[in-house]
Amino acid sequence: MTVKNKPMALDAGPPAKLDADNQAYFAKCREKLGFVPNVLAAYAFDNAKLRAFILMADDLMLGDSGLSKLEREMIAVAVSSVNHCHYCLTSHGAAVRQRAGDPEHGELMVHNYRAANLPPRQKAMLDFAVQLTEHPDKIEEADRQALRKAGFTDRDIWDIAAVAAFYNMTNRMAAAADMRPNREYHYTVRQHMDVMSESPRVLPIKAPPTNRAAARRRRGKAG
Amino acid sequence: MTVKNKPMALDAGPPAKLDADNQAYFAKCREKLGFVPNVLAAYAFDNAKLRAFILMADDLMLGDSGLSKLEREMIAVAVSSVNHCHYCLTSHGAAVRQRAGDPEHGELMVHNYRAANLPPRQKAMLDFAVQLTEHPDKIEEADRQALRKAGFTDRDIWDIAAVAAFYNMTNRMAAAADMRPNREYHYTVRQHMDVMSESPRVLPIKAPPTNRAAARRRRGKAG
Amino acid sequence: MTVKNKPMALDAGPPAKLDADNQAYFAKCREKLGFVPNVLAAYAFDNAKLRAFILMADDLMLGDSGLSKLEREMIAVAVSSVNHCHYCLTSHGAAVRQRAGDPEHGELMVHNYRAANLPPRQKAMLDFAVQLTEHPDKIEEADRQALRKAGFTDRDIWDIAAVAAFYNMTNRMAAAADMRPNREYHYTVRQHMDVMSESPRVLPIKAPPTNRAAARRRRGKAG
Amino acid sequence: MTVKNKPMALDAGPPAKLDADNQAYFAKCREKLGFVPNVLAAYAFDNAKLRAFILMADDLMLGDSGLSKLEREMIAVAVSSVNHCHYCLTSHGAAVRQRAGDPEHGELMVHNYRAANLPPRQKAMLDFAVQLTEHPDKIEEADRQALRKAGFTDRDIWDIAAVAAFYNMTNRMAAAADMRPNREYHYTVRQHMDVMSESPRVLPIKAPPTNRAAARRRRGKAG
Amino acid sequence: MTVKNKPMALDAGPPAKLDADNQAYFAKCREKLGFVPNVLAAYAFDNAKLRAFILMADDLMLGDSGLSKLEREMIAVAVSSVNHCHYCLTSHGAAVRQRAGDPEHGELMVHNYRAANLPPRQKAMLDFAVQLTEHPDKIEEADRQALRKAGFTDRDIWDIAAVAAFYNMTNRMAAAADMRPNREYHYTVRQHMDVMSESPRVLPIKAPPTNRAAARRRRGKAG
Amino acid sequence: MTVKNKPMALDAGPPAKLDADNQAYFAKCREKLGFVPNVLAAYAFDNAKLRAFILMADDLMLGDSGLSKLEREMIAVAVSSVNHCHYCLTSHGAAVRQRAGDPEHGELMVHNYRAANLPPRQKAMLDFAVQLTEHPDKIEEADRQALRKAGFTDRDIWDIAAVAAFYNMTNRMAAAADMRPNREYHYTVRQHMDVMSESPRVLPIKAPPTNRAAARRRRGKAG
Repeated sequence: MTVKNKPMALDAGPPAKLDADNQAYFAKCREKLGFVPNVLAAYAFDNAKLRAFILMADDLMLGDSGLSKLEREMIAVAVSSVNHCHYCLTSHGAAVRQRAGDPEHGELMVHNYRAANLPPRQKAMLDFAVQLTEHPDKIEEADRQALRKAGFTDRDIWDIAAVAAFYNMTNRMAAAADMRPNREYHYTVRQHMDVMSESPRVLPIKAPPTNRAAARRRRGKAG
Repeated sequence: MTVKNKPMALDAGPPAKLDADNQAYFAKCREKLGFVPNVLAAYAFDNAKLRAFILMADDLMLGDSGLSKLEREMIAVAVSSVNHCHYCLTSHGAAVRQRAGDPEHGELMVHNYRAANLPPRQKAMLDFAVQLTEHPDKIEEADRQALRKAGFTDRDIWDIAAVAAFYNMTNRMAAAADMRPNREYHYTVRQHMDVMSESPRVLPIKAPPTNRAAARRRRGKAG
Repeated sequence: MTVKNKPMALDAGPPAKLDADNQAYFAKCREKLGFVPNVLAAYAFDNAKLRAFILMADDLMLGDSGLSKLEREMIAVAVSSVNHCHYCLTSHGAAVRQRAGDPEHGELMVHNYRAANLPPRQKAMLDFAVQLTEHPDKIEEADRQALRKAGFTDRDIWDIAAVAAFYNMTNRMAAAADMRPNREYHYTVRQHMDVMSESPRVLPIKAPPTNRAAARRRRGKAG
Repeated sequence: MTVKNKPMALDAGPPAKLDADNQAYFAKCREKLGFVPNVLAAYAFDNAKLRAFILMADDLMLGDSGLSKLEREMIAVAVSSVNHCHYCLTSHGAAVRQRAGDPEHGELMVHNYRAANLPPRQKAMLDFAVQLTEHPDKIEEADRQALRKAGFTDRDIWDIAAVAAFYNMTNRMAAAADMRPNREYHYTVRQHMDVMSESPRVLPIKAPPTNRAAARRRRGKAG
Repeated sequence: MTVKNKPMALDAGPPAKLDADNQAYFAKCREKLGFVPNVLAAYAFDNAKLRAFILMADDLMLGDSGLSKLEREMIAVAVSSVNHCHYCLTSHGAAVRQRAGDPEHGELMVHNYRAANLPPRQKAMLDFAVQLTEHPDKIEEADRQALRKAGFTDRDIWDIAAVAAFYNMTNRMAAAADMRPNREYHYTVRQHMDVMSESPRVLPIKAPPTNRAAARRRRGKAG
Repeated sequence: MTVKNKPMALDAGPPAKLDADNQAYFAKCREKLGFVPNVLAAYAFDNAKLRAFILMADDLMLGDSGLSKLEREMIAVAVSSVNHCHYCLTSHGAAVRQRAGDPEHGELMVHNYRAANLPPRQKAMLDFAVQLTEHPDKIEEADRQALRKAGFTDRDIWDIAAVAAFYNMTNRMAAAADMRPNREYHYTVRQHMDVMSESPRVLPIKAPPTNRAAARRRRGKAG
């Protein structure tokens, strides 16, 4: 395995022998996605760190909430766009494409949610998430009030904040450790909506070509 | 034609009767790309403005230069990433994917070129382009010197600056007019490199589904 | 109980009936600190969210690491200073004062670590944490290299990043929910070092006066 | 000719043999202004680049528009003030002084248009131009709506944006190439309004002293 | 006397022989506070500079004004919080604690005044002071109008601005010269409000331990 | 007298009966400059405030220093350029033109000192002043060391900082009070260097036209 295939640039230590729960989670990833997300592989040098990360991420993105799962992914991507986080834009951009069943919607969140003509509820939601990302020190009661006016409960506001705050954490972990997204994400739900089935899902993808080959080709063209 | 299919939100006036040279350029676009880029449609209310834009863009991106065409597209995308320009990230992101023959390279430029492990020449080129974008008032001889040290001639520096400066203009036109990228760009060169032909090119794409249908579907899921 | 005594302004729901592990953790807090930190009370509306937060925070701040516990608290405070987070500056400012056994060291971290004449190792550590906080998109290999040069291992770098990233999350939760620090923190380790015992610890503090009285007094003076 | 008299620091190549149209334009400059603006001299190493620049600049600043020529110059200067562009502040500052027939109005635009007590129309126009300059990613329909409310048509909005965007381009070219303004601009329309003729114009100015002499004198005084 | 006890890092020259008025002021400080503030000791290399500083500071903070002395200290601290000025946050943080008779109020101003639930008058006052600190170029009539609406006269607005502007000066002097606050400030008014007398005042404090000892202890713990 | 001729927009109160020293200073201004600078007129509602301002300004700009008077004016203008202060750029821009005997040097400082090809000493001086203006919290020993390396003593560093800090104060006073510069400044030392006498000075200027007339003329042109 070459350096390029490591989940991150940082050498935090060899993979730990996974505890049963972490091992089961990795197995579930392989079954559902066809691979273990590199962010989890990055945390796998330590069972306790991996467990805490999984618990928090799973609760936030998949637990009960007044926000749809798509909305939570939209927050993840809008925050990651501000922070220019390659890992999260790749993986959660794919998640937005998949949950929306719309490749273009994913691109809009990656580029600039303000170009997306969102309904007022989602516009207010992302305005808050981005303000919280850029100027956490300037959040005031008026900002919370704007969300309530857009139809969110206080519990919803907690969830918007919690997802936005979590990606402000993971964006920084990805940047500090130079995490590299699994290449499969780039190719997830890129088809036209018209030809997509009604329930789009990520198909297991056979191993993509080695980066070495890619680099060779790129150099040739960039010349 | 619905509002969503207009090339921009701004109503700058009806399309002008195109002069022969502009008409010929539009014909060439349709032949080569299968469509007229919406940025040109946006300028088409006035022949003089359209001509000046085409002349400048074509010279910068396709004219003689010490920079490869891929490198010029990389600058376009890195600048547009700083400015979060949906139109340019969509259209020039596609161009990077196409010229590099590598979808992942395009995503890297859209997200954050610093994650791309670029060779020193291209890293220096994009560092300069981004500094010029973010802090034009702080450019000094030392910045030019860094480019010379990375192997660029003064004429190359002009070209790096000219492309970066041009997209600082078009990013702002797209934002002010709310230009919407042609939907075809989203689907350009999304295949695995391994299955791509040696000379990738954009195939004419049959009309994508109406946005109305897309919006309906998205609302259903976002609930 | 008046509004002012609530752990946060947001009404995310009534406290959940705590699961055994969470209940035990709260008991430990009361025993060791004399109170349950309001950030935990804020999360207590949901057992899963509370558990994930406790697991992550405890591992980061108290688990095995090449960083001392004081150093981790210094990162927490330096990050919170950039983000102007009242909750975290109050609670972790107290922790720095306590772990350093030096009230002035805590104030320096709250105000500006650059004024603290830190040894090169800790200066490099906080420079990285603050850069990661302010410009996560600009972190490059050179930044990691600076830490290695200052004597940190890659695993240490992970820990510096993980603590800095975590407080970029909690600062935003505290801002979004308007969390209010337990008043006891303000009074923790404020004595002169000379009169302090060799192993300073937080003494349980009898209930401070109601805020109502405080507000009355303040108004009188501010007139 | 000394280095100081070159139109820019960058050595992009020797002047091209000018095509007829470019040659005619230079002749017109010499006739009307008494000199060829250095920005044109800078582009003169390449006929195509020079032509595209002239076409675009002329159409924007002198073509049909709902904006007066003075208003377009005011936008040019307000944008250049944000970007601290010495070349454009010098040349277009002179243009504002000349078109307004008021030296003080030019200074206000160079320093800070907010100090100028402008009529609401022009205040809204420059607020938009400056927002587009500083935060192109944050432009929203509400910003366009504010211009419409101030009396501008959508076509006017295009023109405001186009001028602001163009100077975001040229400011960056001037910074990257270190362009030096023709010295004549500094001395254009500096007289009291009272003693100015009703139709102020730039008189051809005899060659100013060499920079060498200026530098000598300055050094002497700065000691 | 070791380097650490110098009032600042910069060596601007030996203390001047103080003129009578300056000498009297120093005597008054020693009588009232128990020490001469280090900012004055820093200016003491030159009688004229010291005098001008004292005259301006005394007039602003203690002279006639529609603002209470506490409010003026609150402005000083809110401005210094934006500028992260260790010296001023230490000394004027102590002043807020003392004048408010409330340690927690001082901490709130140091950390983030937006967390303080201030009455609208004081909220408007600090919003203006902070806007003036962060974006002096963007102050407009609307900002002054907001203060008038909150009940301030034009003369009050002058005073708010004058205090905010003054600390924008002193914050920068303290940063440039690396001024170190007198250690006594850290220990001023740290008691619970309940046990404080009705008229809190700074008691003369016996010399704190040498920094050398503190540093030794800190190193031991930080290990 | 119309509103436009008031020294500032704020109505801080009627002019005080000036004390003898302040009166003498105003007389000296009238004699030397031909007018009282509006910043002094603005402070004239209160003798104590006026005196403190004059003492500090005079000492900084005219007192003994290792910096030439021109250099101090250059700092004033470079700082005011960052803060976009119309009052100070007008009045101290004039002072630079006058002391340098070079109108172009004044414009360079107003626009962007980085375009001025300054000798290393003055470049370092202004780099420090601007860093202190933009990021006072980030000043470190290395910044002071850069000045020492450029030949400045610690006392010189104090003076650079003191002038930069002072204009960070006055820029904010001018912004908050909307001070308007005396119109004479606009017309000071605008002549070619070649035709200027060896010892340039500001000649008393006869009253400029009323603003009313100017506004009328401008409206006519701007239409």
